[in-house]
Amino acid sequence: GYKGLAVESTDGAFKFHVGGRLQIDTAFVDDDKTRLGSGAELRRARLEVGGTMWRIWGYKFQIDFGHGETKIKDAYIKFRGFKPVSFTLGQQKLPFTLQSWTSNKWIVFQERALMNTFIEDDSIGRRRFGFKAHTHRIIHGNHWTAAAGIFGEGVEHKGPFNESWAPMGRVTFAPIAEKTRVLHFGVDSYYRHYPPNPDLSFTAYPEVHSIPSLLNSGVISGTEDALLLAGELSAVWGPFHAQSEYIHAHVGRKNGLPDPDFYGWYVQAGYFLTGESRNYEPEEGRYGQIFPQGIVGQGGWGAWEVAARFSKLDLADSGILGGVENNITVALNWYATPSILFRMNYIHAHTDPTSIAAGLGVDENVDILGLRAQVVW
Amino acid sequence: GYKGLAVESTDGAFKFHVGGRLQIDTAFVDDDKTRLGSGAELRRARLEVGGTMWRIWGYKFQIDFGHGETKIKDAYIKFRGFKPVSFTLGQQKLPFTLQSWTSNKWIVFQERALMNTFIEDDSIGRRRFGFKAHTHRIIHGNHWTAAAGIFGEGVEHKGPFNESWAPMGRVTFAPIAEKTRVLHFGVDSYYRHYPPNPDLSFTAYPEVHSIPSLLNSGVISGTEDALLLAGELSAVWGPFHAQSEYIHAHVGRKNGLPDPDFYGWYVQAGYFLTGESRNYEPEEGRYGQIFPQGIVGQGGWGAWEVAARFSKLDLADSGILGGVENNITVALNWYATPSILFRMNYIHAHTDPTSIAAGLGVDENVDILGLRAQVVW
Amino acid sequence: GYKGLAVESTDGAFKFHVGGRLQIDTAFVDDDKTRLGSGAELRRARLEVGGTMWRIWGYKFQIDFGHGETKIKDAYIKFRGFKPVSFTLGQQKLPFTLQSWTSNKWIVFQERALMNTFIEDDSIGRRRFGFKAHTHRIIHGNHWTAAAGIFGEGVEHKGPFNESWAPMGRVTFAPIAEKTRVLHFGVDSYYRHYPPNPDLSFTAYPEVHSIPSLLNSGVISGTEDALLLAGELSAVWGPFHAQSEYIHAHVGRKNGLPDPDFYGWYVQAGYFLTGESRNYEPEEGRYGQIFPQGIVGQGGWGAWEVAARFSKLDLADSGILGGVENNITVALNWYATPSILFRMNYIHAHTDPTSIAAGLGVDENVDILGLRAQVVW
Repeated sequence: GYKGLAVESTDGAFKFHVGGRLQIDTAFVDDDKTRLGSGAELRRARLEVGGTMWRIWGYKFQIDFGHGETKIKDAYIKFRGFKPVSFTLGQQKLPFTLQSWTSNKWIVFQERALMNTFIEDDSIGRRRFGFKAHTHRIIHGNHWTAAAGIFGEGVEHKGPFNESWAPMGRVTFAPIAEKTRVLHFGVDSYYRHYPPNPDLSFTAYPEVHSIPSLLNSGVISGTEDALLLAGELSAVWGPFHAQSEYIHAHVGRKNGLPDPDFYGWYVQAGYFLTGESRNYEPEEGRYGQIFPQGIVGQGGWGAWEVAARFSKLDLADSGILGGVENNITVALNWYATPSILFRMNYIHAHTDPTSIAAGLGVDENVDILGLRAQVVW
Repeated sequence: GYKGLAVESTDGAFKFHVGGRLQIDTAFVDDDKTRLGSGAELRRARLEVGGTMWRIWGYKFQIDFGHGETKIKDAYIKFRGFKPVSFTLGQQKLPFTLQSWTSNKWIVFQERALMNTFIEDDSIGRRRFGFKAHTHRIIHGNHWTAAAGIFGEGVEHKGPFNESWAPMGRVTFAPIAEKTRVLHFGVDSYYRHYPPNPDLSFTAYPEVHSIPSLLNSGVISGTEDALLLAGELSAVWGPFHAQSEYIHAHVGRKNGLPDPDFYGWYVQAGYFLTGESRNYEPEEGRYGQIFPQGIVGQGGWGAWEVAARFSKLDLADSGILGGVENNITVALNWYATPSILFRMNYIHAHTDPTSIAAGLGVDENVDILGLRAQVVW
Repeated sequence: GYKGLAVESTDGAFKFHVGGRLQIDTAFVDDDKTRLGSGAELRRARLEVGGTMWRIWGYKFQIDFGHGETKIKDAYIKFRGFKPVSFTLGQQKLPFTLQSWTSNKWIVFQERALMNTFIEDDSIGRRRFGFKAHTHRIIHGNHWTAAAGIFGEGVEHKGPFNESWAPMGRVTFAPIAEKTRVLHFGVDSYYRHYPPNPDLSFTAYPEVHSIPSLLNSGVISGTEDALLLAGELSAVWGPFHAQSEYIHAHVGRKNGLPDPDFYGWYVQAGYFLTGESRNYEPEEGRYGQIFPQGIVGQGGWGAWEVAARFSKLDLADSGILGGVENNITVALNWYATPSILFRMNYIHAHTDPTSIAAGLGVDENVDILGLRAQVVW
């Protein structure tokens, strides 16, 4: 089938699949002061195997070979024996914000909004070694999910996990969660405590991965801990969808150094010209795969979507001169089949003259055309 | 089956396969002036997944783990919806010369002839990120293929693709393309334009991969572009087959530096003692898998083939002292099954005293015994 | 099924499987003089494909992505056409000692006993490129296995294989080899000859992989060759099992340097509280997968096993101050299903004041709690 290989025992107690994804990116950039350079990139090239055994045990192993590196993304064991709570042990993605918890395959734009830097940074971590509990309940017709976990370092880090540790949690609430109508709220928290000198810094590529960062906080010396708080809001109304999120990041420092507070947010909206709706998954509080009404190769023309996003990131506070960036993106997406899609993003990025990245007192205006071809199997 | 895992929907619209290959090499060398050293090597260790979806969409993802490195070989999406032309987007092999376009699994010798250096060199590229159109037509009973593409850098390169770009094309013509009789002609062109200081150089291992190069052009300073032109000729007459190709390489340089012209060619012939024929694939203008008449394990003795090749590479021109090499190879191949083969190559390599690799004014005579065991699934 | 994916032709002549394993480790350490540090680690993350073709041909390709590295474990072709002898060509594990030849999935403790350093060291090698013959015979009701091979370097080594070479052999004898009763004896030898300056040294992590080594021989200068001799003894009596092995290592040196002799041994015993027996594989002279009588997810509680081990390693001789370590381990294992297990190891490690690792004249007492979750598919 179109999902690669998926086999299942007749009673459903055993499942196994081999899957993967390729994301082939090209970017053309009109740079300003900082030399950026257009580029092509194999953004993601993933292979995964996973399965279910004796109905309540699961596992997943996923590796990314994209942009010249080999990185383990998922390597976990799942236990579903204490319903309605499931437990996940091992290397896994942390449930933090809607855009991050939604797979990169099914976010509306080529890349997540700028504020994703707060958890994507290597010193904080979107994927970490740890233990998570997750549950989904329907109470008076309202969908709730709750997830909490404790995490150490990532699988590629050699350092001792107990010198950095992070409890985190996410709660979502969806009073409407129908096929074509959704209303979703969420709150997230993520705390990480560090050993001495953790090299914490934030940078953010301008929403196309192959383009270098325009912002850079530099290493924030004396960092002791970091606290991230976020809020989520999203809705679907037939072919129309909208989404907005905010992250506040507080960095705690020692030796009387002032504690910087950073923040980022975005608001986006989209519309399926061909009438499809965004696919909400209430069990996980996120969006999933898009199924076009007509498939290219079976007489159809696929699904066509237009979308726009405003995105802001502020990394300038308490003497940290990381800069401020405001991005506007317009997007055209073509879902030729459920497994094959093509994205076109046009991004205008503006940075304020508060960043040491390009040189203090300098602002930049950068225009980027991003193209992506994606296959999922 | 012997092809690893291949599953298909009943209407043939969906296919999926998991495949791979191992090539286990051993070489014994009788060196001359340059110390070479015998050696064993896992020449190739590849894993691949690929498939077809909704009949007209295809994809392939292939990774090589051989000789201690992890490299993506193929990562592309294919579209067959505008017959008779197919389109391939992503990291892929470029169709240039018959020996290169034929898979390393089914070339007659352990390695391709010396002239392969012209596209194998990292600055030019056998596998690159790009877009290719391909077609196969039968006109008055003659098989034609035509392929053209535009390519940037490879997937492992971080640099911007638009600073090096390469249009290329190949046309083949086969007036005879039967099971046991083939006559094939082809012409190839490949142009690459470089950003400043591209580090272009050519080296060539003496047709056994683990043996160090005897020729070395050094970095050709001031390179602006490179143009490769090639001609192909091949024939099959029952168990007999012959093949010859020529490449001319012109390197354009700036600042009044003279433009060197290099060339390479080979001629080879082989004979199946057990009566099989080389397997020509007219749709691609190349050779494919050998199916022995008797299989070891089912009462047969496999297919046995003898072959010989003369191969020349000239990297000495316009002050570039890369040297000249002439190789003679005799080969004995045993195809125990369609998936398992054993190769034995004896190579005598001679270099003229025009190379700075061993020291100018020195010629070398090197003898190599190469062994390979190959499994394909 | 629970074995990942395994397909077979109806006549059994063709088989193919996709498998793998994850081992998720956590360790808490109470260190002494040397700073060790607790830690989490993805100990092993392996993917494998393998198969049988035309009944007598086999192959296996296995890659480990654990602890941030990509390493080929197996890449071989197997021939079973000359019964009762099978031949294996390529990168493979060497049959040397019972604990090493038993898969790390089914050894009783989290790690093999200290003496495993003698073949795990990179200069000697548990997995190497080479050629092995193996046979299993039943003579007067007694099970015999014999294996012999010649090996070069490993697949990740770039150096010429003929500058280091190693003949080795193993013979095992099992007068009892029933489902619940086993008596097993074995002898092993492994010789390796080196090119000049091979950087031979021995270190040994204290039976939890993420914890740094307490012993270190340093590079043994002037090494010419190494000879390892070992003896094996093991028994199963219903739910009870016991095992003991000894290795003697002799390092030959040039230039009148004294030849050091090192040794290591261990004795272990275990008991299945739930009545299972350890699973002896007489064809290979080793232990295999444990099948619990009750499966978690099907109303059962899995298999529960307790075990203890004393382990010694002596790396102090002839002026080499590698130190002496004695470890006591107690273990509790829970086999929730045949594919999912959890291990808890408590280790007390003591080093004598004969090692330069912590500082000469210093002894150390280290306590470690090791945890593992394992999934096999």
